[in-house]
This record gives sequence, C-alpha cells and structure tokens, in this order.
Amino acid sequence: MQRILSAALPDFVGQPVRLAGWIHRRRMLKSVAFLILRDAAGLAQVVVTDPAVRAQLEHLPEETAVAVTGIATAQPAAPGGVEVTGPTITPLTDPAAPVPFDLYRPDLRANLPTILDHAPVALRHPKLAATHRISAAAVAGFRETLNGMGFVEIHTPKIVGTATESGANVFALDYFGRRAYLAQSPQLYKQIMVGVFEQVFEVGPVFRAEPSDTARHLTAYTSLDAELGFVDDHRDVIAACHATVAGMLAAVTERAGSAVELLGVRMPALPAEPVIVHFADALEMISAATGRDVSGEPDLAPEHERWLGEWALREHGSDFVFVEGYPTRHRAFYTHPDPARPGYSRAIDLIFRGVELVSGGQRLHRYGDYVDALAERGETDLTPYAGYLDAMRYGMPPHGGFAFGLERFVARLLDVPNIRQVTLFPRDLHRVAP
Amino acid sequence: MQRILSAALPDFVGQPVRLAGWIHRRRMLKSVAFLILRDAAGLAQVVVTDPAVRAQLEHLPEETAVAVTGIATAQPAAPGGVEVTGPTITPLTDPAAPVPFDLYRPDLRANLPTILDHAPVALRHPKLAATHRISAAAVAGFRETLNGMGFVEIHTPKIVGTATESGANVFALDYFGRRAYLAQSPQLYKQIMVGVFEQVFEVGPVFRAEPSDTARHLTAYTSLDAELGFVDDHRDVIAACHATVAGMLAAVTERAGSAVELLGVRMPALPAEPVIVHFADALEMISAATGRDVSGEPDLAPEHERWLGEWALREHGSDFVFVEGYPTRHRAFYTHPDPARPGYSRAIDLIFRGVELVSGGQRLHRYGDYVDALAERGETDLTPYAGYLDAMRYGMPPHGGFAFGLERFVARLLDVPNIRQVTLFPRDLHRVAP
Repeated sequence: MQRILSAALPDFVGQPVRLAGWIHRRRMLKSVAFLILRDAAGLAQVVVTDPAVRAQLEHLPEETAVAVTGIATAQPAAPGGVEVTGPTITPLTDPAAPVPFDLYRPDLRANLPTILDHAPVALRHPKLAATHRISAAAVAGFRETLNGMGFVEIHTPKIVGTATESGANVFALDYFGRRAYLAQSPQLYKQIMVGVFEQVFEVGPVFRAEPSDTARHLTAYTSLDAELGFVDDHRDVIAACHATVAGMLAAVTERAGSAVELLGVRMPALPAEPVIVHFADALEMISAATGRDVSGEPDLAPEHERWLGEWALREHGSDFVFVEGYPTRHRAFYTHPDPARPGYSRAIDLIFRGVELVSGGQRLHRYGDYVDALAERGETDLTPYAGYLDAMRYGMPPHGGFAFGLERFVARLLDVPNIRQVTLFPRDLHRVAP
Repeated sequence: MQRILSAALPDFVGQPVRLAGWIHRRRMLKSVAFLILRDAAGLAQVVVTDPAVRAQLEHLPEETAVAVTGIATAQPAAPGGVEVTGPTITPLTDPAAPVPFDLYRPDLRANLPTILDHAPVALRHPKLAATHRISAAAVAGFRETLNGMGFVEIHTPKIVGTATESGANVFALDYFGRRAYLAQSPQLYKQIMVGVFEQVFEVGPVFRAEPSDTARHLTAYTSLDAELGFVDDHRDVIAACHATVAGMLAAVTERAGSAVELLGVRMPALPAEPVIVHFADALEMISAATGRDVSGEPDLAPEHERWLGEWALREHGSDFVFVEGYPTRHRAFYTHPDPARPGYSRAIDLIFRGVELVSGGQRLHRYGDYVDALAERGETDLTPYAGYLDAMRYGMPPHGGFAFGLERFVARLLDVPNIRQVTLFPRDLHRVAP
C-alpha cells in the first residue's frame, strides 16, 4: 500500500491507509493505548486495542521509526478529526535509545547548550522544526522575488587569497602550503558581477572570526546578498530591498503557514511604501524626543535603533524603517558619498523591530574614486584589490546593493533572544560540533 | 525617462527611448557611426550621424557604461528589427581602460589562464555570461523540483570540528587556536536532517583539498545535495534523482532559452522512465561487447562509463543511465548493502553522456550497522561521529540521497573539456584569485 502523510488522513475516512513516521508519544491507558505518530506533515493518532499490538508498542520507545497500517476512522477528538484504528505496526529500524528530553511536550524543556549539544534529535521537536521551515520559506521568498525582478543567482568563492574587507576578523587556512582566507562576504564579487548581469544575488555562507561570545554573534551564517546596476542612487536599492523583504514575508505566510501558526509568530507590518528617514533627521528626532542631544553621533546606538523602531510603528504602522545617509567616514570604503551633503553618504540600513537587519547602499563605481577612498584609509597597495578594481577600470555603472543574515531575519521575526535558537548547527567561539 | 532594456525596443517603435548598458562595439564608418550597446537583455544598435555625438563616441572606448536616449526606429537589418536613431549619449562613468581581449567578437580569443586572470571583465562576453545564466537556471530547476516534491531546504555547517569523511583531502583552518576543517560535503548533516524533515536539500559550497591539477578538479565547487527518508530502497532515490534532473533540464530550456541558443547547446535526451542497469550486468555487457573480460572489476573505469553512455543512447535514446549495485567495499561506509546480493550494495551513480555525474544510494539507517561498518574500516573511535550516530540511535528510517557538482553538470551539458570554463571564479591548486 502507498504511504500517505498524516495530513491526508481526512481524504481516506473508512479506507485502509499506510502511514510512516516517528513514535511521537505513547499513552498506555487501561483499556486502550494511543500512539501519536509524527511525520513531515504533522501528527496522527493511532488507537491500539489489540493486546498483541499493545504488547509490541510497549517495546517501541518514542522516536522509533515505524510504519502503521490501519483504517482511517472519523473521530472528532483526534487531530484533523480522523484517527487510525485496528493498526498493524512495523518497526522500520531498531528501538530508539532514550531521548535526553521529551520531544512530545509543547515546548522543549532543556537549556540552550543541551539543545545544541543534542541538535540532531532536538531539531525534531515540532517547534524547532517549524523554525527552520520558516527559514526555508524566507529564503525561497528572497530568491523568487529577485528572480522575478530579473536578478541572476551567482555562487562566488568562499576561499579568497587576500583578506580585503577587514584584516582582523578572518579565518586563515592552509592552502597547499600558503595562506588563504574564508570570505567574510561576497561583497566584492557581487559588485564585479553587476558588470556581467546588471543584477545579481547570492545565498551562501559567510565567515567571521569574531571572538565575541554574545547572543548575536556566530562565526558563520547564511548571508542573503543582492546587488544591482544602473541605479540613480541608493533609493533604487531601498526599493529593491523593500520589495525583497515583502516577498520574503509573503513566502513565509504562504509556504510555512502552519509553522507560523504553531509558533504563534506575530507577522510584521510592512507598508506598501517604505518608511525612510535620513540619518541626520533621525538623530534630531531622537534628540528632541529624549531631551538628550545626540546630533553629533557618528552612528546609531542600539537604543537609537530601538527608538526609531518604535517611532516607525507608532507613526507609520511599520515594523521596518530604512535609515539613509550615514556618515561616509564610518562606512566601508566602497560607500558612495552623498554629493549634496558633504560628510554624509548614500549608505542605508534597514531596522527591523528596532534592530539593524540590512546594510547596504550605493557603492562607488569610478576607478579613481576607489583609489582615493582606499588611500584615505591608508591602503596604497592595491594588489589585493586587483580583480575588483579591474571591474571598475573596465566600465562599471552606478550600482548598489544590500545584505543581511538569514538567521538574524528569522530571529527578529520569531522574536527570540539568541541567534543560536534559529540556526541549524550554530558555530561560535566554542562550538564546532555537532 | 524610464530606462528600457534592449529586448523591449520593438515595443517602442517611433517613440523616444532611454537605454543603458556597456559600449559593446563601435564601428566608425565614413558617413555614419554605429554603437552596439550591450545590456542584461542583449544588444542594441545605435546609429550616430550627428558629428558632435560621433566626436564624443571617439573618446568612449568599448566597455564604458553609458546611457543612450534616442528614437526607436524600425530597421530590418538591426538586431530585433529596431535601432536607435538621433541619439544622445551620457557616460555613466569614466572612459573604460583598454580591455585585454575583444569582447565583441563571437568567441573570446584568449587562452584559459588569461580568461581566468581577467575573469571580472572576461565574464562579460555574451557566451561566458550565457554559461552562467544556464548555471543559475539549472540550480533554480533543482530547487523548484525538490520543493515541489516537499523537500525542505537546509544550510548546514561548512566549518566542522572533525574530518570524518576522508582524512586526507580536507582544508584545515585555525579556529581560535584549535584546528577545524572545511566540510567536504553536507553528507552527514543531510542524513541527520532526514530525521527532522524526512526530505531535505542543500545548495552550497564544498571544499576538497585535492592536490590534483587536472581539467576536472576544483578545490571548491557548488554541491547539489538531496536526501529522503522512508524509502523502500535505492530505486526511490533513483526516481527522485531522475525527476530532479528532468526538472533542471526543463528549467534550463525555459529560463535560459536564449543562452541555450547562443551557445548552441545540444539539450540531452532524458526518457520519462530512467534507464537503470546493474553494476554486474554492466560489466557483463561490456565484457561481451569488447571481448575483454572485466567482470571482476571493483568499479567502472572511465572507458566503461563511456561505453555505457553510448549504449544508453543507442539502445534507449537516453543521454543518462543509472548504474545500481556497486560493490559495497568500494563505496563510503554509510552505503547500504543489497541484502539479496552479498558483496553488492544499493549505491547508485548517474552517468551523463558517458561521465559519472551523480553519486548516491540508500544509506545504512541502524545504529548497530554503522558501528559495524566503521569498525570494518578500522574506525573504532566513534567520537568524531557522535552527532551523526545520535541521529541513528534515536530512530532513523530507511533513507538515501544523491549529490552532484553544479559545475560538472553544466560542463557536460555544454560539452566543454575544462570545468574552469563553467566556474565563475574557479579555485584550484594554483588559483585563489580573482
């Protein structure tokens, strides 16, 4: 008999069915035993009255993989209104070892280190699995939206010969006797590829050797990167980013609706038009509102971002707010200055529920501007930038882009305090396994 | 005026238009000059008769990024039947430096090392760009097909604490003072994740420190991985793999049709039902056909794979043939043996045009079988496998999967001899830049 998923049971009432999955829970009552079976689609209730089957079930611990055949029977009290009666149970593997925590409870009652140490089995908990279904849906939405706008997907090198973006926080590796590095971001490559495809995106791992032991830091994460050419200015980047985030939220709702429901995710508000505030205006508003003059600050402090998040929600009904015009000096060397406001740039951030999510902006595109910008930061040896600068020398249009961490997006969406809670197998200062 | 792409010109005949792109070629004739403009959609012909504009064009070398406004004018001899007349040209950046090769010729006349050294500009050649559009379409097809079958996308660690799959060919890195390694494949993690989602896939980089300097070897490539649970045997894996390859080919045709046309790609034949031959039968057929007894061979030699490729095409009209039942001893430790044929396994390969493309098969799923299989290979310390074996101890259904390199797929599809020709910025024994 063809296996069906638990969610399909209502279509088979009165008929024999074959399910397969994991023993999520057993409840051995006096006259009847219940087997809750978990599969990719959810849970199914199996009712055992046959003493022989009950005796068999006694020796099949939770998490054992089994196949169950029986009759799909209407039962209003069962999940989906249908249960399986008169079952035959066939183990598909050996009886499972005792799991270090109860996966059948509504919440996984274990501390984070225990969960992470036992990730291969902890991730089976429906709420943890739901987290990663949302993650998959968000990535699918990222790609679909950008594909729909004509962006081309690329895969750029993760091993690079020189540590260009910031010397300190890179992982070094032994590359056939010489030193190479793990890429901190696809930034330089995605800019190069604008010269080929005009609009590109990449979903891939990036590596940061940051010795920071916080709830926000990982040494590797999945970066969602996009870059587009022939822009007028950073406002075109904001438009692309806004559309992309909207597409991701729609994909989460459409593709991971039951995960959203199970986790009780409060989906964020994103108006049709992006909320945009200039860096200088933001500082002014904050100064006026808090009575503390912050107008000279070079960047937004976390409490400023929180204030802006609350302001955007209160004034514009938006969980997202774009900040434009960050001071040039405090952004990466490739940042395009704002020709109309000396000292300010065309860099942007997107703040999601009071926390910075996306960084981006318009980039420099003239070779000479790059030489100057690097010299200003004390970099006069251009060798490490050779390929990158070639792309500029050989004709690069005005362009810009944005990037953000998938894990950070999901953490804010789910409102969890520690980024490790939304990372499949997190890597940090202390953890490289499992 | 809103910019349009070159391909949209026919919709605007008689109207003013604004194009933007790169100066692909200039042809300065006596009474007229032609500017061929290249954008993401293709080429457009711009006709210059105004002496002032002509003088301007003299100083705008090939590859300079420009905007062009003018009138879309019907002209049967122009690409798309439309050209732009009476143009105004606005440079979007400084005049481009002289490119090391002519990007406007039908083929890039340079040797491979020169092309790779100058990849940031070489990739702009329409044929090279077309290659990577096909690559992007193939990946999109991979994901769409698997998403459609209910697979969940995952992102597994690329930094791992132990080198489990094969000690020799891994890159080591300094991880905060201790040793860690770059993942050779997501194999162990995707198996673990079958315990969570039943069916998973991943698209991501894998790293092989192979000191081989051949046309087939890269030290990093994009691996397309899938794994599925609750299989009866490896035939379920073959069915999933066959459907996935079919989906990829369809996506290439649908999404990258003009790239396929430009490159003259001969799309391969893939029958609705997969062609499957058992390893032992394959050797017998080859022995009979060649008159040389190869029936005792432990693996298929490249000439055997070529023979099978020709046989599948001749006898079954297929460019693809699955080989099942490879000898267990010569496959990875997690390979599931064939209970019906001692010595043979449920491992599979997919041969594409006479070259191995995909490897896969059914895996072991019982904890005890893993302990035995590892012991048989001399591995008695199970610590490096702890998380992986946990997934088996806590109940793992019969499962299997497959994996292949995106670059290898595209190389066979395009029939190019060197894998570097289809890799954006290849990494090998000698190359870590650009």
